[in-house]
Amino acid sequence: MNTPPTAPPATNGTTRRPTEGELEHQRAAIAALGHELRALVDATVRTSAPAEALHRVADGVRRITGQLTGRRRERAEIPAVDEFPGGTRMYSPVTGAGSPLAPPMRVTPADGGLIGRCTLGFAHEGPPGYVHGGMSAMLLDELMGRACAAAGMPGMTVSLQVRYHRPVPLETPLRVHARVTGTEGRKIFVDGSISTEGEPSTTVVTADGVFVTPDPDRTRALFPSLRGTV
Amino acid sequence: MNTPPTAPPATNGTTRRPTEGELEHQRAAIAALGHELRALVDATVRTSAPAEALHRVADGVRRITGQLTGRRRERAEIPAVDEFPGGTRMYSPVTGAGSPLAPPMRVTPADGGLIGRCTLGFAHEGPPGYVHGGMSAMLLDELMGRACAAAGMPGMTVSLQVRYHRPVPLETPLRVHARVTGTEGRKIFVDGSISTEGEPSTTVVTADGVFVTPDPDRTRALFPSLRGTV
Repeated sequence: MNTPPTAPPATNGTTRRPTEGELEHQRAAIAALGHELRALVDATVRTSAPAEALHRVADGVRRITGQLTGRRRERAEIPAVDEFPGGTRMYSPVTGAGSPLAPPMRVTPADGGLIGRCTLGFAHEGPPGYVHGGMSAMLLDELMGRACAAAGMPGMTVSLQVRYHRPVPLETPLRVHARVTGTEGRKIFVDGSISTEGEPSTTVVTADGVFVTPDPDRTRALFPSLRGTV
Repeated sequence: MNTPPTAPPATNGTTRRPTEGELEHQRAAIAALGHELRALVDATVRTSAPAEALHRVADGVRRITGQLTGRRRERAEIPAVDEFPGGTRMYSPVTGAGSPLAPPMRVTPADGGLIGRCTLGFAHEGPPGYVHGGMSAMLLDELMGRACAAAGMPGMTVSLQVRYHRPVPLETPLRVHARVTGTEGRKIFVDGSISTEGEPSTTVVTADGVFVTPDPDRTRALFPSLRGTV
């Protein structure tokens, strides 16, 4: 594998691949900031603070943003801390420990597929007290895509059918399940479901999807940052 | 309509319904904080700042969260600034001006349905450079649900089928469309699509969904905060 284009500049002005220890140090800091931002997001969407207090907090947030100086990655650039396809995505809006948007869902292999565990808060609310229907689709799409990668066929979603049997409660530990059920050429068929940890045998949302593994030419065209690695 | 249970306490210790002017003042402050948090989220998921800088920023974020003191709303409690069903949702993860997670999508009536406009950033990334497939489903689920409400039948998603014709680009103005195509008792059939503003006639994602309007008993059971209003 060539040196990825996203490696940080070394002190001598050239680029070099960071060591695994440096990457872990950086990932821990990214996760720590992600954790604090998720707490701020939750406080923000639940507060009853008056307008004047919210304006003061907004000023404070603007000052903090100003502290994140330095280069910002460009569109399609893969962060040096990430492994793509099939590995760590620090800023994934579903699983990323560094994402202020992610629950984040923790993924483990199980039952011939993958299990994802998370609890969704007020920031992910749709109908009052319940998870946004689109957020359930997002958990399923992510885990079903990861199930393809875990089965050795990283793929992109071609179609996703989601069935909502009952509302998904907020602030309740959830268990998501995804499993590859078959393949046909580059197509991968995947099933998914969501239940609560309290009643794991009662599915509240089910899904089936079709994913496709792009051929090498298409992969290079879609992901120019991967040049030299595929 | 009775006084909603979410009205803030007045200075005399009783609750009263806030005036429309007070609500607008509060909504403007909520939107200002949402705007600053979205900028912080974008800076966070794009920064190349070193670990030490990220830890300092995390400390700053924790201090800010501590400033959001006072009562936090409980699960299923509808914020006083919101109108449910069918109206303003300040913290919606798709349309909410106060949500750090939302693009936010701006919704207008058009073409016998609704059009939603937004641009998705790095925080909503799935495959490098492209929108997370689940996020496309989330935009569609939200707008299709709103199309039901706009047609006088607020509903909850029963099933959603999403087809991904090509990847949706990040940092590109998008146009989402949703339209009720028919009803059958309490069921509502809705079509949806996503295209870019640059090529509005080329759909990149299409969807069809079934929504259902819960009957009054079911509505009261699902949304106890609505007591007295339905």
